[in-house]
Amino acid sequence: MFRTAELGRRVSKEEFDAAAPALRIEILELQQKLRAADFPVIIVFGGVDGAGKNQTINLINEWMDPRWIVTRAYSAPSDEERERPEFWRYWRDLPPKGKTGLFLRSWYSTPVLEFAYGRISENELTRRLDRILAFETALADEGALIIKFWLHLSREAQKRQLKRLSKDPDQRWRVTDTDWRHYEMYPSFIASAERMITRTSTGHAPWTIVEGENDRYRELAVLTSIRDAALRHLQRRALTRQTREQLRQLTPAAPPPPPGSDGAVTDPAPALPATIRRVQPSILDTLDMTLACAKERADVELPRLTARLNTLYREARDLGISTVVVFEGWDAAGKGGAIRRITGALDARDYQVLPVAAPTDEERAQHYLWRFWRHLTRAGRITLFDRSWYGRVLVERVEGFALEEEWRRAYAEINAFEQQLTEHGIVVVKYWLHITPEEQLQRFRLRESIAYKRWKLTQEDWRNRDKWDAYESAVNDMIERTSTGAAPWTLVPANDKRHARLMVLETLCHRLRTAITDTKASRDRGKKAKG
Amino acid sequence: MFRTAELGRRVSKEEFDAAAPALRIEILELQQKLRAADFPVIIVFGGVDGAGKNQTINLINEWMDPRWIVTRAYSAPSDEERERPEFWRYWRDLPPKGKTGLFLRSWYSTPVLEFAYGRISENELTRRLDRILAFETALADEGALIIKFWLHLSREAQKRQLKRLSKDPDQRWRVTDTDWRHYEMYPSFIASAERMITRTSTGHAPWTIVEGENDRYRELAVLTSIRDAALRHLQRRALTRQTREQLRQLTPAAPPPPPGSDGAVTDPAPALPATIRRVQPSILDTLDMTLACAKERADVELPRLTARLNTLYREARDLGISTVVVFEGWDAAGKGGAIRRITGALDARDYQVLPVAAPTDEERAQHYLWRFWRHLTRAGRITLFDRSWYGRVLVERVEGFALEEEWRRAYAEINAFEQQLTEHGIVVVKYWLHITPEEQLQRFRLRESIAYKRWKLTQEDWRNRDKWDAYESAVNDMIERTSTGAAPWTLVPANDKRHARLMVLETLCHRLRTAITDTKASRDRGKKAKG
Repeated sequence: MFRTAELGRRVSKEEFDAAAPALRIEILELQQKLRAADFPVIIVFGGVDGAGKNQTINLINEWMDPRWIVTRAYSAPSDEERERPEFWRYWRDLPPKGKTGLFLRSWYSTPVLEFAYGRISENELTRRLDRILAFETALADEGALIIKFWLHLSREAQKRQLKRLSKDPDQRWRVTDTDWRHYEMYPSFIASAERMITRTSTGHAPWTIVEGENDRYRELAVLTSIRDAALRHLQRRALTRQTREQLRQLTPAAPPPPPGSDGAVTDPAPALPATIRRVQPSILDTLDMTLACAKERADVELPRLTARLNTLYREARDLGISTVVVFEGWDAAGKGGAIRRITGALDARDYQVLPVAAPTDEERAQHYLWRFWRHLTRAGRITLFDRSWYGRVLVERVEGFALEEEWRRAYAEINAFEQQLTEHGIVVVKYWLHITPEEQLQRFRLRESIAYKRWKLTQEDWRNRDKWDAYESAVNDMIERTSTGAAPWTLVPANDKRHARLMVLETLCHRLRTAITDTKASRDRGKKAKG
Repeated sequence: MFRTAELGRRVSKEEFDAAAPALRIEILELQQKLRAADFPVIIVFGGVDGAGKNQTINLINEWMDPRWIVTRAYSAPSDEERERPEFWRYWRDLPPKGKTGLFLRSWYSTPVLEFAYGRISENELTRRLDRILAFETALADEGALIIKFWLHLSREAQKRQLKRLSKDPDQRWRVTDTDWRHYEMYPSFIASAERMITRTSTGHAPWTIVEGENDRYRELAVLTSIRDAALRHLQRRALTRQTREQLRQLTPAAPPPPPGSDGAVTDPAPALPATIRRVQPSILDTLDMTLACAKERADVELPRLTARLNTLYREARDLGISTVVVFEGWDAAGKGGAIRRITGALDARDYQVLPVAAPTDEERAQHYLWRFWRHLTRAGRITLFDRSWYGRVLVERVEGFALEEEWRRAYAEINAFEQQLTEHGIVVVKYWLHITPEEQLQRFRLRESIAYKRWKLTQEDWRNRDKWDAYESAVNDMIERTSTGAAPWTLVPANDKRHARLMVLETLCHRLRTAITDTKASRDRGKKAKG
């Protein structure tokens, strides 16, 4: 695989000096276009030590306007980073639309080195590479341009390079003991890299292998590759935007009403012939909406559960168990009240509540999951989301903000996201607070009549109400596709607020209890295995 | 995940009878459109035993014109199938463009059951599901419409269903012991299915979960889902065709020549600024083209190697080791002659030579890899491809038949294909026969001058010659991206025919020798582990 980058490709100083000025202008002009583009550019550098990764990145920063470039190189994760899922730090550093990110010692670095060192199995390497594939595919699906360079040296060239640098007093610092150790490992490192490139070179994120020994060749090759890839992507995106518009016009928000019907009936998926007027039950119809809790019982139970939650959460915190709580539900279903019952049991230092409304400018310039990744907290904390990433498959689906293929894709993206949380040991608790349309109407009317509650009710709430059936269908699909063993949905009948709040607290206590037991058991096993 | 399909959804007989005739006509009209479409329809049925998979498939065959439908259900692989890579039987049965394939007990069946039985680990399940993902993605990328139905029953409903069928003398045969055994395993089967659906529900091949207990509901739900998905796909494909045309116009076959140049220089990837006129060396430049073999030596060596190959191949055959040999190379590089030197050592029953020219109508109606899958032979045989699947990244790339994103994607698809071969134990030997342009010219002239060779030379050969640089660049990229540890390329300097033929024979002998040694060693280990 790498023989093609051991050919002695080179550019003379004269050739370089003749070509550089024009290329430099082209690159700068290109950067102006990229600044206005609706996608970020993600450039990954991997390769053999001494093949010039750093120098190349320096040159890019020199030739381009560094204000629109972010450069990131990763080493062992910090305490902060270790307390979150592995990919948190990469999500955090993603460039927004219009900017370019240069990534050195990137998400590829750890799996390739660990496999080369023999610390992980081939199966484990494959699993990690597949996680990277999913990460890059999610970014590319949203439009990101991803370019990956492998800067290569043959073993002999690496030796020459390391020796040359070691002899030069000004360059000596570049060569570390690790570099020499890696040189010793060259064959296993290269075998690991070959697996990586074979598996992760895709149409939307291909690797380009560049011979690294001659600085001038390498620099021109990398910069012209970036120029060509970016120009192509700009053209392609223009076409995609146009196709997207046409697709949006095709996508029917709802099937046409059957002739002679009043058009009010929309059927939860899967669709039935339009002549069948009966609405098939959705998962929400299985809830017993008469469930209620008398005030007397609540007066006893609420304080008891609050105390219990306080004990459990402190125990979880001390074990480093984080919790992510998601609240979804109809307008006026009582999400805010339920959240306050939880936070009432917690210390303010240990939780944060994140109301999810329209994204900020900064968030809009990123992948739709970015704004949730950024809010993942340190170990032991509780994060409560008042609405969440599920907006993608609820409001964005129903209102047509997301294309059908986008929201269909989102179920898998969301499952993969939550899987990264649960695999990291985070407890993921998801509530759907359900009220009937009648109850909602009553609550809306009440809000209208009470001055200090009136602000809570907007025209949008009334509009959403008109689309009840379409939302119900979306909720049904959401629960079907994202209620997994590790991150199940809890459906809460919430016509009675007291009942809803007790159920929310009980479920959270139960999930924390289980997580604490599991964590302790697995630590005991770990201790026994050691001792 | 499955609670949404345990809701008691149903359609009454009256409703069904009112809806069915119109739907049936719509489905038939749709089928006419699909017959003329440029994509196949692949419908996969999975689900709980007793949920009506068979009845649904029967209904589809009844409502649609069965001439355009193929139905396939798989059980344990036959001898024929076991001798090939696992997916061979699925590739073999893929419907061509314009047809619909219904797949029961499909590629999902074995991994889900084996995980439910506890026979494979979670890692192994993931690995197999990822292979399925790659398979479906490759088909969808080429335009296939993929629809997947999970027909569901709750555990109680399954019991009711199995009891009901057992009591009915006409239906009793439907219920087997396996069904009851599966019923006992319901919880682990469902847990396994949940993992499968979570991981393999993608935007281009989503699962639809359908409640199976009520026949009428299930049948209408499946048929309307198929109708809606197919109508959407027809529209989407029309848009895709249009975008593809625009993309093709964007894709520059080669960078524009620099001002004042003669335009003859095209640079192997990665590109350099056009002002740099020097052609960088390609992997082919590293070959020593002066290598030759004197007639005297060849007269000794050829018979010796032929005899050795005969011994080795018979030993490999008896061990069940199959071999796939790929010949690529310039026009007139001597592929045919080299192939004849190999086959001269083999028994006619044990090999086949497949000259790969333009695809047949039947092949054109399938995924581009289909025509190679179909020719994989039984255990112990040798298949020699005179040109191969690499046409995708050579002629199709250079001539612009494949879009840039298509041939870029192809490297990964080809690697995945060859990986399935090598993991199955097949020896994959790939030769690039290299001659210089001067040598080619001489051979062309010779062909012109000899009457019985003149037919070999076409106008196309002369045209290809004009694109030498573009082809060289494509060859370099091909070798870079597809020379893997398990399936490496052998580059053969072939200006001297005798040298080339000896090198081809030697390499094949060496690869067979290694495979025989490895196979014996692993069988010995297996015996020891048993004994």
